[in-house]
Amino acid sequence: MELSELIFVTGNLNKVREAEQKLGIKLNHTSIDLHELQEVDVECVVKHKAKTAFEQLCKPVIVEDASLGFKAFNGYPGALIKWHRQYVTNKNICKILNGFDRTAIAKCAICIFAGKEYRVFVGETKGQIIYEEKGINGFGFDPIFQPDGCEKTFAEMSLEEKNKISHRAKAWEKVKKHIII
Amino acid sequence: MELSELIFVTGNLNKVREAEQKLGIKLNHTSIDLHELQEVDVECVVKHKAKTAFEQLCKPVIVEDASLGFKAFNGYPGALIKWHRQYVTNKNICKILNGFDRTAIAKCAICIFAGKEYRVFVGETKGQIIYEEKGINGFGFDPIFQPDGCEKTFAEMSLEEKNKISHRAKAWEKVKKHIII
Repeated sequence: MELSELIFVTGNLNKVREAEQKLGIKLNHTSIDLHELQEVDVECVVKHKAKTAFEQLCKPVIVEDASLGFKAFNGYPGALIKWHRQYVTNKNICKILNGFDRTAIAKCAICIFAGKEYRVFVGETKGQIIYEEKGINGFGFDPIFQPDGCEKTFAEMSLEEKNKISHRAKAWEKVKKHIII
Repeated sequence: MELSELIFVTGNLNKVREAEQKLGIKLNHTSIDLHELQEVDVECVVKHKAKTAFEQLCKPVIVEDASLGFKAFNGYPGALIKWHRQYVTNKNICKILNGFDRTAIAKCAICIFAGKEYRVFVGETKGQIIYEEKGINGFGFDPIFQPDGCEKTFAEMSLEEKNKISHRAKAWEKVKKHIII
C-alpha cells in the first residue's frame, strides 16, 4: 500500500504538520467527527478510531492518537489525556504530581486500516512532568513534558528538534519503513 | 411503562442491591458487555449505554451510570471516575487534591429506553473528598466522599442511611415517581 492511497483522518492540523515535516511529503487529510472509545490504552483507541473512520469514509484510512501515562498512576490517564488536559489544565497537572514520581511516558499509535487487518505503529518517549509550563511551541502537553536527556520541554523545541525524539515522530518513522511514500 | 417490563443492565451487583433497597422490589437484571462512550458528562454516557444495551437485547432497558466531578477540575473526571479510581486509586485521589478545593458532586443518571425516546433521571449529592479513606461499606468512591451535612463518608453508612441521601437513591426516587413499580 502507498501512503498516497490513504486518508489521514484528524481534526488536529498540528498533527498533520508534524507528520508532513517528518515524512517530507504532503498528506491527504480530512476531519470527521469520530466517537472515541473510553480507554486508557492508546492502541485500543486507535484501532477503534480507524474502524469508525473507515466505516464513514469507505476508503483506506490512517489515524493516530497520543497518550501520556504517569508512572505514579499506573499509566493513567493514557489516551484519556485529552480530557485530563481540557478539564484539569496543564498547570494543574504539574501541581497534582507534587509529592509523586513525575515520570511519564508519551506514546503515539498510528493505525492503517482498509477493512481487513489493523496495522499499528507505536512510538514512545520517556520523560518527566516538570513543575510549571515552559515554552510556547507545539501543542497539547508539550509545555509540561521534558524528554529524558533533554534540558527543554517539547514546547521549547523547534518542530525539527521535536521531530528527532518525539513519540509521534518515532511512530511515523515506523510507518515510513513499512509503506511506500 | 411498568418497571417489571424493563431489564436493568448492569454488571455491578452493588447497584442492583441499592436500587432494590430503595424501591422495595426485586429487579430483572442482566450483565452484558457494553462499549462505553469516552465522556465526562454522565447523561451522554447513560443515553449511549441505553441505546447499546437496547440494540443488543432488543428489549426495553434501564441503565445507570455514576459520576464524580471535582470543583477544582471543572467537573472532571465526571463519568470517567471509574478509570480514575482504577488507575489512580482512592488513596491517591485524596492526595492529589491537597492544595485544591475538595468540593465534589456525585451524580447518578438513570436512563430508560425502549427504542424511541430517552427518559433520563438524575440525582445529585454535593460533598467533600476527605483526606484519607474511611469506612468499609458501599463501593467505588464511597470511602472518600463525605456528603455535605454529614460526619460520615458513604462507606461509613449502612445501606439504609446511604439510601436516604445518595445521588443514586435520589435518581431512583425520581424513577419511582414516573413509572409503575
